[in-house]
Amino acid sequence: LRVQAKEVQTLGEAVLLAAGVPREHAALQLELLIEAELRGFPSHGLMRLPTIVKRVAAGLVDPDTRGEHVWRGDALVEVDGENGLGPVVALHALNVVVERAKRTGVAVALLRRANHLGMLAWYVEQAARRGHLAIMTCTAEALVHPWGGSRPMLGTNPVAIGVPAVPDPLVLDMSTSAVSMGKLIDYERRGAPIPHGWAIDSDGRSTTDASAAIAGAISPFGGAKGYALGLALEVLVASLTHTSLGTDVVGTLDTVSPSSKGDVIIAFGEQDGSTITRTGDYLEQVRRCPTDVDGSVGVPGDRSRTARDSALSDGFELADSTAEELQVLHQDAMTSSARDRVSRT
Amino acid sequence: LRVQAKEVQTLGEAVLLAAGVPREHAALQLELLIEAELRGFPSHGLMRLPTIVKRVAAGLVDPDTRGEHVWRGDALVEVDGENGLGPVVALHALNVVVERAKRTGVAVALLRRANHLGMLAWYVEQAARRGHLAIMTCTAEALVHPWGGSRPMLGTNPVAIGVPAVPDPLVLDMSTSAVSMGKLIDYERRGAPIPHGWAIDSDGRSTTDASAAIAGAISPFGGAKGYALGLALEVLVASLTHTSLGTDVVGTLDTVSPSSKGDVIIAFGEQDGSTITRTGDYLEQVRRCPTDVDGSVGVPGDRSRTARDSALSDGFELADSTAEELQVLHQDAMTSSARDRVSRT
Repeated sequence: LRVQAKEVQTLGEAVLLAAGVPREHAALQLELLIEAELRGFPSHGLMRLPTIVKRVAAGLVDPDTRGEHVWRGDALVEVDGENGLGPVVALHALNVVVERAKRTGVAVALLRRANHLGMLAWYVEQAARRGHLAIMTCTAEALVHPWGGSRPMLGTNPVAIGVPAVPDPLVLDMSTSAVSMGKLIDYERRGAPIPHGWAIDSDGRSTTDASAAIAGAISPFGGAKGYALGLALEVLVASLTHTSLGTDVVGTLDTVSPSSKGDVIIAFGEQDGSTITRTGDYLEQVRRCPTDVDGSVGVPGDRSRTARDSALSDGFELADSTAEELQVLHQDAMTSSARDRVSRT
Repeated sequence: LRVQAKEVQTLGEAVLLAAGVPREHAALQLELLIEAELRGFPSHGLMRLPTIVKRVAAGLVDPDTRGEHVWRGDALVEVDGENGLGPVVALHALNVVVERAKRTGVAVALLRRANHLGMLAWYVEQAARRGHLAIMTCTAEALVHPWGGSRPMLGTNPVAIGVPAVPDPLVLDMSTSAVSMGKLIDYERRGAPIPHGWAIDSDGRSTTDASAAIAGAISPFGGAKGYALGLALEVLVASLTHTSLGTDVVGTLDTVSPSSKGDVIIAFGEQDGSTITRTGDYLEQVRRCPTDVDGSVGVPGDRSRTARDSALSDGFELADSTAEELQVLHQDAMTSSARDRVSRT
């Protein structure tokens, strides 16, 4: 089903409004999910909406709060997310540390009890477009095995970096796993074999069977180095934010547990214009690098930007299952708000 | 040649003293080089000493300075390294931001014009052992090709993370390249083929020929993701420190150019004891993860620590070429200081 951003934004907002989410927060949550769709990352898109709605209904999400801020120093704020919506709590925290970094040079927000932040690129890109270099990282459910190990013990722990540049910032947003769980589930549904190197079965053997992989563990990207980076991020985030580690991390994929992962946001002061121009010039040189036999050279963020431009003008494909779920949610929302109107009269 | 840390420390210090390096700075530079040897990273060890001596003699290193600090905010200091020795400038900067972070929560040092820092693990481990989480990253000579590209356009840009834990911190120190240039040179000397994936020849084709690789470019680790991370670090460091980008980065391997790379140090406030204990418990769980078919599971820093313990008690192997160079340097130093004594009388 091909849809336009605007129509699903309206539809999704109506669903969240009916669930009791304030209009501004609903708009923000939807914007993030739709941005993921536009950029070609449906795993972080509208397929997340049913879980969010269920978590709100179950009282696992407080849709009203932007989190409580306690400064632990001139440049570091601890954010108790108070179970708020991820994008609501995190975007507010980002704006606060970006503002603070103008004076202090650098500022950090440490988030606990915020719900799933979604695509980190969305945040660091906003900072970078305002001239601020930003770094974000967070923990996630333990789906990845240690290098040489056979059990999932660490998260897919992503890292995102936004660096101001003209005409467009560099926007890195990568998990430290070889593949996402969403992709494994997609392969399983289609009955397709997965490539070696993506995952292991529960005996610790490399597997091409998606079901065996889901029962086993996802591999870190880049072998021992990728594992080392993912583990370092796991303990960095958990140490700084006082949140859970390894298999104790819950509450971003399920509809039963409060979120126990952590998020770290680092923002720097404003970059001067000549630096932003120079960075852009270098990135352009990199794009023009003579290619190898197969190749073309991109800069992190390029592919998303191209996909987004085309999806904004031509619409984007919504997976059938997601479209159906969205339809059901919307119907439920309309019914319940009609019921509310009746009970109010 | 098997040597003891103490004897090469004395020998090396004498060489640097004769070159005009103050005793305290000579001791620090040697400690760093020897720590690399002890941990099994000779590429960052004593084989670097001849280059350092030549750079001091050529006036590319000012052995006296610890760098000039200008605070750009309460939490961010710009460090003009004034061409000082890498470890002298960087360790001082690290100590300063660790101290500042106690009050501000986080503090950052941005270094330009510091000579080669050497093994980053040495720095972040010191911070972590004092209870401070620290992150370091820097640029380096352009030896790595963009993913899909055929020319070296970015550095081996390492990232290091030290996280306090009992009994020992997690110490990550990894380059974003598949392999170091030192290793390629070693394979070339031995006439051994290199594995596919390490490097490309100058036509952009994967090669197993070490000489062709050296004339070509090193590959990023972990494919497109490792490239994206390395490129993000390249522009992050250069933007923040106002230092060179890509092929303009010089002066860490040669003996003709002032150093034009940059270094970034991020230090956080002190971790509380219970967090440090909890992190250690989790890392211990990870080490005990059931292994896969080949495997054993380690935590970043473990292998270095084991190597160091054994090398401290039993000594370590010095490459013949390094031992010879050291001997020659020492003889030159003794001759020149004898000459100085004569000329003074």
